[in-house]
Amino acid sequence: MPDAPTAHLFDSAIALQHQGGDDFAGHTSEAYWNMIGPFGGATAAVVLNAVLQHPQLLGAPIALTVNYAGPVAEGRFTARARPARTNRSTQHWWVELVQTDADGSEQVSTTATVVTAARRPTWSAADTPMPAVPAVHSLPRSVRPGNVAAWLARYDVHAIQGDIPQVWEGQATADSLSRWWLRDDPPRPLDFAGLTAMADVFFPRVWLRRATRVPVGTVSMTVYFHADSAQLAACGTGHVLAEARAQAFRNGFFDQTGLLWSADGHLLCSTHQIVYYKE
Amino acid sequence: MPDAPTAHLFDSAIALQHQGGDDFAGHTSEAYWNMIGPFGGATAAVVLNAVLQHPQLLGAPIALTVNYAGPVAEGRFTARARPARTNRSTQHWWVELVQTDADGSEQVSTTATVVTAARRPTWSAADTPMPAVPAVHSLPRSVRPGNVAAWLARYDVHAIQGDIPQVWEGQATADSLSRWWLRDDPPRPLDFAGLTAMADVFFPRVWLRRATRVPVGTVSMTVYFHADSAQLAACGTGHVLAEARAQAFRNGFFDQTGLLWSADGHLLCSTHQIVYYKE
Repeated sequence: MPDAPTAHLFDSAIALQHQGGDDFAGHTSEAYWNMIGPFGGATAAVVLNAVLQHPQLLGAPIALTVNYAGPVAEGRFTARARPARTNRSTQHWWVELVQTDADGSEQVSTTATVVTAARRPTWSAADTPMPAVPAVHSLPRSVRPGNVAAWLARYDVHAIQGDIPQVWEGQATADSLSRWWLRDDPPRPLDFAGLTAMADVFFPRVWLRRATRVPVGTVSMTVYFHADSAQLAACGTGHVLAEARAQAFRNGFFDQTGLLWSADGHLLCSTHQIVYYKE
Repeated sequence: MPDAPTAHLFDSAIALQHQGGDDFAGHTSEAYWNMIGPFGGATAAVVLNAVLQHPQLLGAPIALTVNYAGPVAEGRFTARARPARTNRSTQHWWVELVQTDADGSEQVSTTATVVTAARRPTWSAADTPMPAVPAVHSLPRSVRPGNVAAWLARYDVHAIQGDIPQVWEGQATADSLSRWWLRDDPPRPLDFAGLTAMADVFFPRVWLRRATRVPVGTVSMTVYFHADSAQLAACGTGHVLAEARAQAFRNGFFDQTGLLWSADGHLLCSTHQIVYYKE
């Protein structure tokens, strides 16, 4: 008999066991580890996954806001997803990730809200067409420092512009735009959880703008889902085009606004975040 | 003796009385009424105000996400603001607006998260300079249909482009950008609550794009605050430059991304929302 297929590292990282009620048990993943906690995109995907697995779920994801209140410690966590209000075609969720301290008290690491809805076909239009860019296979794979954070190896990036600086100091850029072809490594069929994690895949805009690795941490991230599950499934394991730029850096916080398109030019999601930085 | 100064209509609309603990009592305002509930910007300002008045507040607003889960009924409501986690220099809040139904049960109309922080001077830069636009006094005041919604009269708008269509049907635009000079009417010194409401002042992008008034409702709005209270105070009662555009309209939901600058060119906040539309 052949071996059972092994789960993709991402699916293991976001796996949750329903504990009854609104609680789901999960465990942090070495493969998606960042410097002092999990990759924020994986945490956002866990938040979404708790809603997607909840027995009371209505519809598909429309909006997700995740607030990174404190680091998630290595080990077990509980994802708690509660419907705050269920309407005829939309549903509003509270989600939090909690861990139990050594003294037995619960600590909230992550707060979030999610909106799901039953979508219906309507008049539709795109106001941000995909930019004309070189094909992914004409671009070299971006070289990421493997010893900085494990999760960097989990994405196959081909940068069109705004790649992570290979030389720090003195290489500051005039703007903060990055534009990349992007997919999971190993490849994984695109779905809502995978797309959510990809929305957080950009290195800090302040590093690009200043070419200096000041301490940073995402404080809050929002994703608006334009695609439905059929559009995501149609992307298969192909690359998506992702871009992000900052709009302002001011007194310890910068924002980032981003867009992710399918290779055939459909806007899959728009995403925004605000990030703490030091100095 | 002169009469006591009358509170600005906006301050009355967002006024909250602390009930002890995390609860604050408020009342909807006729002056900021929309079609079937309060103007969403006023609701967002109430959410923020509950945090700003909370005795445990640390720092100033950094990020706000408000989810419009259901209409706020005319009358009394409770704004409930709970600190989810307080760090050394950042604080994460849950906020909800609740009303009591005729049967005595609590109904959640609004869910929200807020991040506040103690900001410190750092390297700063603007990646979205204010566009060159005509002076406010060279532009006529935008004519708003007074009988549609009371809150429209509470803003003095001078449109540079993307004004609300004066003729519906057949006037659709190629893009969804609006760019306006904007202030409260009557004028009111700018602060975090006032700026928050202004972030929701744009009429639905789908009305501009299609020149058809389909039913709409904001589902979720996020504001990232770049300015501190001193920068806001320096704006006084002057106009701010506000712009917004949609990025995608798809199967019942469109997103909007916006920026608000002080008249002297500082980016005060960036803002994003996702909006339900019918047909």
